[in-house]
Amino acid sequence: MSINRQFVIDRLPTETLTADCFRVVEGEIPRPRAGEVLLRTRYISLDAANRAWMMGATYRDALIAGDIMSGLGLAEVVDANGAPDLEAGDFVLTDTGWQDFAARPAVGLTPLVRREPLTHMISLYGIVGFTAWVGLHRIGRIRSGETIVVSAAAGSVGVLAVQLAKAHGCRVVGIAGGERKCDFLTRELGLDAAVDYRSPQFAARLRDACAGGIDVFFDNVGGDVFEACLMRMASHGRIVCCGAVSQYDGSVPRHGPRGVPGLLVTRRLSMTGFIVSDHEADREAAFGMLGRLVAEGKVRVLEDVIDGFEQLPAALIGLLAGENIGKRMVKIA
Amino acid sequence: MSINRQFVIDRLPTETLTADCFRVVEGEIPRPRAGEVLLRTRYISLDAANRAWMMGATYRDALIAGDIMSGLGLAEVVDANGAPDLEAGDFVLTDTGWQDFAARPAVGLTPLVRREPLTHMISLYGIVGFTAWVGLHRIGRIRSGETIVVSAAAGSVGVLAVQLAKAHGCRVVGIAGGERKCDFLTRELGLDAAVDYRSPQFAARLRDACAGGIDVFFDNVGGDVFEACLMRMASHGRIVCCGAVSQYDGSVPRHGPRGVPGLLVTRRLSMTGFIVSDHEADREAAFGMLGRLVAEGKVRVLEDVIDGFEQLPAALIGLLAGENIGKRMVKIA
Repeated sequence: MSINRQFVIDRLPTETLTADCFRVVEGEIPRPRAGEVLLRTRYISLDAANRAWMMGATYRDALIAGDIMSGLGLAEVVDANGAPDLEAGDFVLTDTGWQDFAARPAVGLTPLVRREPLTHMISLYGIVGFTAWVGLHRIGRIRSGETIVVSAAAGSVGVLAVQLAKAHGCRVVGIAGGERKCDFLTRELGLDAAVDYRSPQFAARLRDACAGGIDVFFDNVGGDVFEACLMRMASHGRIVCCGAVSQYDGSVPRHGPRGVPGLLVTRRLSMTGFIVSDHEADREAAFGMLGRLVAEGKVRVLEDVIDGFEQLPAALIGLLAGENIGKRMVKIA
Repeated sequence: MSINRQFVIDRLPTETLTADCFRVVEGEIPRPRAGEVLLRTRYISLDAANRAWMMGATYRDALIAGDIMSGLGLAEVVDANGAPDLEAGDFVLTDTGWQDFAARPAVGLTPLVRREPLTHMISLYGIVGFTAWVGLHRIGRIRSGETIVVSAAAGSVGVLAVQLAKAHGCRVVGIAGGERKCDFLTRELGLDAAVDYRSPQFAARLRDACAGGIDVFFDNVGGDVFEACLMRMASHGRIVCCGAVSQYDGSVPRHGPRGVPGLLVTRRLSMTGFIVSDHEADREAAFGMLGRLVAEGKVRVLEDVIDGFEQLPAALIGLLAGENIGKRMVKIA
């Protein structure tokens, strides 16, 4: 391959993301400058946060029209260009963007422990697995016997969070969109209950599934699901704010959940947002536990791998619409 | 005195609290049964939470029509009735209700260290002082040099919280209603800034007063002020949810603050509700520090004492309207 395919943002979406927000550009393979290495993208992770980056500054700068679309890539070093800690063939996780090749500063790139299949470096041993572990154990401080509710439970972080909580001895209720996902959660992952947020009976079913109240709510979605769970929190409950995917793919700022802050006071609740990159010190503990649980058959790695660079826009649009079960990524090479 | 005056709830308020929600009843002084002591109410504390108790179950049962109005009283034991740990002349803090005399179970009553003036047992050494201390030091974990914002800063908890934060070396911004209170906060209590939430320029003034972001927001009010402060939080900021007085005195459930949970994630914020009675282990540390700071002249005790049992309804209505600076209470005897 001698060309570098790139998806560039043609225009920022103002409502639901559509494929015409992107255009393909073909260019030359970049040459690394001094201090840079040349990376070849193997897999690109699709994440709801990608859409949030198109809305404005978050924990990173906003994307703007003309930018190469950002995305976390699992990439192979093809030219280490003299970098002391890297060599050709090493794998790294970095924002390669949606392109075949990227030149990136060597500083800040850490060679990964190679795992097979390679996709596990994005799912179980990537941000997804780390996020599920930190959210439950460090932010939510789950305890055996507690009732844990996870929203977007069939999503990339969700499928790991629910299994980690089950493995910890918790009673686990998943929230997901549609019967297919809910059936998967109870039948395949053994959850105690799964509730379809699209059902008109959502609130009543959530109440029935959490009759004793929710001790820890691990939230990925925000919005109405967030409010419904807030109302069902038990005293001293903890809400882990991991994402707000329901808020990303549209233009209108929604009203926040009723009960904030009144219910937090009367029920002594806490609500804590986190970004996993603040928790590097926990990396070994997290991946150690995740690896053990997979080896013991207590956690299944669920991936949704789509083949082909050209599938990137559709893969993200579908993820935002809730198509995937488990970690969605696109195989580039 | 041989009669026992009582304020009974004639009807529950559905909107703003009015005096005709109460009626006076005169009865006999109760006789303590076995295990009970007879208390004479000396001062009754007025608290925004009184109004919340009339809205439904909170951390205690809801009040209903026909109940004696609840309220925290500083009371003197007049007949210990054989209780092992109490004797006549001891002072206790308990829900005497709005009445001259109350018979209460001796179990759970702890004689207070007597302080002069007696009113300090309700303000500085009461729930108010303890709440300010726990909220700042245990929930907010304030650090010297941080920017602290306190809502209802001229209120009972607020005036102590702002002074404690100043004494800790923080930059302190108070939010209060009206110029009189804002002037008081800056001129009399030495705050770095005070912002009038009733001003049409509230949002801009808050922004100017907290240009570097808010590290800890100690909130007593909820509602629009809460949302405005949430938008100004610095990364890793902590929101201490102490009360939601803006939500108590009306019927309509308001929408919650925009930015929940999205901003909590991107800025890694936490929001924690608390009830001070969960923190008994900190009592000595709190009152020790409060006493020292008052002795050193670093904290002023601000009280708003109204004389006369019959003033109770007006005192509460006025408190909900924001009349008071400092701890409001009614002297009964």
